[in-house]
Amino acid sequence: MSTGTAHLADAGPITTIGFDGDDTLWDSESHFVLTTKRFADLLEPWLPSLDAVEEQLLEVEGRNLGLLGYGVKAFTLSMIETAIEVSDGAVPASHISEIISWAKELLDHPVDLLDGVVETVDRLATSHRLILVTKGDLFHQESKVARSGLAESFDGIEIVSEKDPETYRRVLDRHGVSPGEFLMVGNSVRSDVLPVLEIGGRAVHIPYHVTWALETVEPERHQGFDTLPSISDLVDYLTPSPT
Amino acid sequence: MSTGTAHLADAGPITTIGFDGDDTLWDSESHFVLTTKRFADLLEPWLPSLDAVEEQLLEVEGRNLGLLGYGVKAFTLSMIETAIEVSDGAVPASHISEIISWAKELLDHPVDLLDGVVETVDRLATSHRLILVTKGDLFHQESKVARSGLAESFDGIEIVSEKDPETYRRVLDRHGVSPGEFLMVGNSVRSDVLPVLEIGGRAVHIPYHVTWALETVEPERHQGFDTLPSISDLVDYLTPSPT
Repeated sequence: MSTGTAHLADAGPITTIGFDGDDTLWDSESHFVLTTKRFADLLEPWLPSLDAVEEQLLEVEGRNLGLLGYGVKAFTLSMIETAIEVSDGAVPASHISEIISWAKELLDHPVDLLDGVVETVDRLATSHRLILVTKGDLFHQESKVARSGLAESFDGIEIVSEKDPETYRRVLDRHGVSPGEFLMVGNSVRSDVLPVLEIGGRAVHIPYHVTWALETVEPERHQGFDTLPSISDLVDYLTPSPT
Repeated sequence: MSTGTAHLADAGPITTIGFDGDDTLWDSESHFVLTTKRFADLLEPWLPSLDAVEEQLLEVEGRNLGLLGYGVKAFTLSMIETAIEVSDGAVPASHISEIISWAKELLDHPVDLLDGVVETVDRLATSHRLILVTKGDLFHQESKVARSGLAESFDGIEIVSEKDPETYRRVLDRHGVSPGEFLMVGNSVRSDVLPVLEIGGRAVHIPYHVTWALETVEPERHQGFDTLPSISDLVDYLTPSPT
């Protein structure tokens, strides 16, 4: 499963592990995917193709990213904007109401922890300092952290607006952790892996079955980190093999 | 200007000053007030009274607060919901587009620092540890802090989802500051003053000419803190008089 050159065995001990939240500890993207399908059904009279709706929505989300940022509310405003554009202004208010009701469902959805998360976090909390580093809407992420039941296992909860090298540097400074002793674990190569490698940290990629298109990167850029099939493999991965 | 019993002279030295952002360092609420007026104009065919529109919007914002939180995106979704309700579904999509365009204006608006802010923050940064404690949308607040040009003067920037005693306790813990050496400065008695007094800190209220209705509290609860007419009075306030 090693895909690069700078993986775990090459360097000193890891004292601190960062975990991504959405789609690493709990399910998130699949709710957006389902909502996007409902959205495409709603727009069917004007644009009868899921692919075309997805493409249009993604374009609107992309151009709104700089102002609206990430999260359910940004997604919802982009859906409303897309609906108006695609229907050339003909979308009725009742459809807009329905879109807003989906936003509330998304925000109120129970937090479904992924398989192996509780055991892994419990186990690693006894041997490492754990920091949750999650991106998106502050209010919603805090609510998810609280409902996850995991908050007590973490030494720090960092909700950030963007996961770039500067953000990781700031988070590690704040906790007095040097990059060389830090391992980040997450499902997004773009957000959880590459910026951490860039500041001299290490990272493990645990792919999720769905990834938001704006989070994907080209495969040729994947190197210098390891990929694990499941978070349940993390404890063994961190335990030096007796050779 | 003293309004209570536990004001500055009663206790030990202040080492750390917390500043609120919106309507303490920079103008914010007046943009929402202006947008609300434009919103009332838009709804004039269905509800020809600014007061009634404001009342209805406030009710929707209040019931959405638990799910949507604070900030421009929450405000915008509540405006859209209100428009649909007030018009009984008759509001055209072009009006919804207009509401979304206001959201983008609000998010992109230049940060207008209030009078005396630059001088006061510069001066106090030489004598105290300064922490910005601001509530709302993470992405927008970060953008405002960056554009304010003030970030370098602060030892910490804390963007929080709610300003309650628990939040202030967490912020002070994180910076290793005891409540007795902390003074919070802000325009909201509810968010910047009362929760800080509750954990044993001190607070100065600097009223702004407009306050969001959901931030107001009953006057009889105002005690135990001082009120200053302007942030420019803060340096003198913190300097012991030579008696």
